[in-house]
Amino acid sequence: MYSSHDTICAISTPPGRGAIAVIRCSGKDAFELAGNIIMLPSGKGSLSQQTANTIHYATISYDSQVVDNVMVAVFRNPHSYSGEDTIEISCHGSPYIQKRILELLVQQGVRMATAGEFTMRAFLNGKLDLTQVEAVADLIASGSAAAHRVAMNQMRGGFTQQIRKLREKLLRFTTLVELELDFSEEDVEFADRKQLVALLNEITGVLVHLRDSFTLGNVIKNGIPVAIVGKTNAGKSTLLNLLLSEERAIVSELEGTTRDSIEDVISIRGIHFRLIDTAGLRQTHDEIEKLGIERTWQKIDQASIILHVLDTDSDLQEAFQLGNRIRNAADAADKRLIIVLNKIDLLSKEELEQKLNAMEQVHGIHETVIAMSARSGAHLALLEQALIVASGAVSEDENDVIITNVRHFEALNNALSAMQRATTGLKEGLPGDLLAQDIRETLYYLGEITGEITNDEVLGNIFKNFCIGK
Amino acid sequence: MYSSHDTICAISTPPGRGAIAVIRCSGKDAFELAGNIIMLPSGKGSLSQQTANTIHYATISYDSQVVDNVMVAVFRNPHSYSGEDTIEISCHGSPYIQKRILELLVQQGVRMATAGEFTMRAFLNGKLDLTQVEAVADLIASGSAAAHRVAMNQMRGGFTQQIRKLREKLLRFTTLVELELDFSEEDVEFADRKQLVALLNEITGVLVHLRDSFTLGNVIKNGIPVAIVGKTNAGKSTLLNLLLSEERAIVSELEGTTRDSIEDVISIRGIHFRLIDTAGLRQTHDEIEKLGIERTWQKIDQASIILHVLDTDSDLQEAFQLGNRIRNAADAADKRLIIVLNKIDLLSKEELEQKLNAMEQVHGIHETVIAMSARSGAHLALLEQALIVASGAVSEDENDVIITNVRHFEALNNALSAMQRATTGLKEGLPGDLLAQDIRETLYYLGEITGEITNDEVLGNIFKNFCIGK
Repeated sequence: MYSSHDTICAISTPPGRGAIAVIRCSGKDAFELAGNIIMLPSGKGSLSQQTANTIHYATISYDSQVVDNVMVAVFRNPHSYSGEDTIEISCHGSPYIQKRILELLVQQGVRMATAGEFTMRAFLNGKLDLTQVEAVADLIASGSAAAHRVAMNQMRGGFTQQIRKLREKLLRFTTLVELELDFSEEDVEFADRKQLVALLNEITGVLVHLRDSFTLGNVIKNGIPVAIVGKTNAGKSTLLNLLLSEERAIVSELEGTTRDSIEDVISIRGIHFRLIDTAGLRQTHDEIEKLGIERTWQKIDQASIILHVLDTDSDLQEAFQLGNRIRNAADAADKRLIIVLNKIDLLSKEELEQKLNAMEQVHGIHETVIAMSARSGAHLALLEQALIVASGAVSEDENDVIITNVRHFEALNNALSAMQRATTGLKEGLPGDLLAQDIRETLYYLGEITGEITNDEVLGNIFKNFCIGK
Repeated sequence: MYSSHDTICAISTPPGRGAIAVIRCSGKDAFELAGNIIMLPSGKGSLSQQTANTIHYATISYDSQVVDNVMVAVFRNPHSYSGEDTIEISCHGSPYIQKRILELLVQQGVRMATAGEFTMRAFLNGKLDLTQVEAVADLIASGSAAAHRVAMNQMRGGFTQQIRKLREKLLRFTTLVELELDFSEEDVEFADRKQLVALLNEITGVLVHLRDSFTLGNVIKNGIPVAIVGKTNAGKSTLLNLLLSEERAIVSELEGTTRDSIEDVISIRGIHFRLIDTAGLRQTHDEIEKLGIERTWQKIDQASIILHVLDTDSDLQEAFQLGNRIRNAADAADKRLIIVLNKIDLLSKEELEQKLNAMEQVHGIHETVIAMSARSGAHLALLEQALIVASGAVSEDENDVIITNVRHFEALNNALSAMQRATTGLKEGLPGDLLAQDIRETLYYLGEITGEITNDEVLGNIFKNFCIGK
């Protein structure tokens, strides 16, 4: 399915018009085929004669017609992105010129690359492992500082190294266990069972830690949906505008989202929050129950964090009941509730204290309560802090390995199941061959993560999400 | 207004997400400032120590956080696009990373480049003259083979050389004429008047030729509007679809057009034709006059070529009258009329011959008549040939200099006026000082074209149309 015997080309820069565009051409015949249309200044010789990692002024022409004056960078196997002989043509960024150069390359026998094919070749040539391949796609897709950092860490191979270490340790032990099988009639134990138990426990601990980082990883990669709810005139819109108008990076419309409502995305300390506005809840109890409530509840259902906005006139009992409903809805899904007591600029200091005390009596201390003014912006920093805490992204060590990929999450879960079977088996004195089988299964799933064990279907799924030209 | 004492940076690739993006940084401190955030592998030294025209793997980091792994190309003054020390960073094409790298460069004291500022510096450093600068913008904007070829020729400097040669010849003569002024009391003539007349005639001839190429240049640059008119059911839509469905490059929607109707653009032998569909004209004479006619006439007014579609049942008298109106409307504006006799597949060979004879009797031989079938595609090649002929782009020599720029057109017109005054003055024995003044004026306008004579306003107008990063 995945051949790398031919030479491929693609536009690697974003589509459209710009000052320059880059066309990449990689494969064993890259110099020869591209050299047919790329003329270096006289005296410089042909493309294939140039030193690795040099860049040259050149003219692309065909049939004595000049297509463009370009710069051509020369990379030599294995010191290129794909690990093959590669040239990168920087041409003028007109779509016409980009298309024309591709046409000329194809005429010379170069094939148009499929999505991610340069990276695929880098993987096949051992330049990147599979988690690094996935990190490349994540890096290009990353839209926030946190998502970028996690992808960058993964690309630098921290995750892979951790997995590899575990595999090596397990592998040594499995070999010993399997050796016992050859001597099964003599009832020897080459593998110290106590050490094996300790090792399995250690590995299980690391796997659990990695698997659990997925919740955070998912938050970082996809942003955290925050529903802003409350009765009409509590100041929901003012709060939304305040959050949006701060000097943070605002991603006005989320790319590629399939949701029907447009969400405003803000970034606080590198974490993306997707703000979901909701219709104001009605004032009387019955109508809350009946009218418009479905939509708002649907939105609450989509959210991980709920900002419940109260103004200083709010009926605390009513707020408490709404809070309870949210708490119940959230119980299963680990939602966080933040209560925003808005419009505190309308209260004296004493009134505010009274109000907060009353709230504490009604609500208890379960919820975070932020007293602030959406109009003046007072105490906004407290709300931001509360959002960061609620996101679960606070304790994150910057060098910690964080799983963001569903494929890794599933492989880790599978590895853990096998690991637990092995641990139970050990305790119950399971025969060596069954033990070895469980450990082999763990090894298999760990190998799947890094790509040491893989198949065309897995590769196909990974590369279908790539952009052309990478 | 245009300083080049600082170091500038910009994203040079098209905006958005892609496999890679290129950030350009140019100026006397480019190596030092960018070097603060770009780390080469240990042992390779700093950015400023690298050989010109080499490309290096590097890490961009700040505050011990890795932003990206990149390739950095090093160019040294004067052997770079701008003529200054320049680096080009190829980073992963995530908008977040692109933005972050720009931010870091700006933090180091690099300034964000304005539109076209790298090219501006290339001009100020004598790497490009003004027509070449304009050709760079045209090249990036070019969407057809013909527009691309004209821009490419202009960038290669053919036009400039022609203008420079004329200037030099004129300049030698002016010097002689002006020398006479110093000896005016002695009534000497250093400049041979016969030779001067011959020279002025020669130059006038070249200027006229250049100026007249503007009509063709404009067609090539902007495409030719073609209105398809005719009564309902004559087959206008079928013809439009036939033209669009052929295996030509179709530019589905024209970028940057300010017209209210969407035009379909097709390309025949590198020339763009913008097809404008019109509402069908009514059958009876009176209604044609009254109803819907205004809009269709407006569209005819916008077009350079009118395709008048008749079916085999058409009333030739009526068609003749419409043809006459079009001819009258076109007289001033040099419009071309092509009559398409459609649905010939419904006629026998004899009937077709009869019809064509009848048309010739009614229409005379003024118009091009194409007998074809839009449904079957028969004789489409004849229509294409007729469109190319009507476009006026047939006689074009590929190496001919063609003016596409309004600024050049105006400067050539001004130069011509001054030239004609000088010629008349010579014939009428005008005193040397007045003669010299007219010739100086010609020199001025020619110098304006190449940028030897320029001012901030002219430069500002040219560069405001550039994209950022070029």
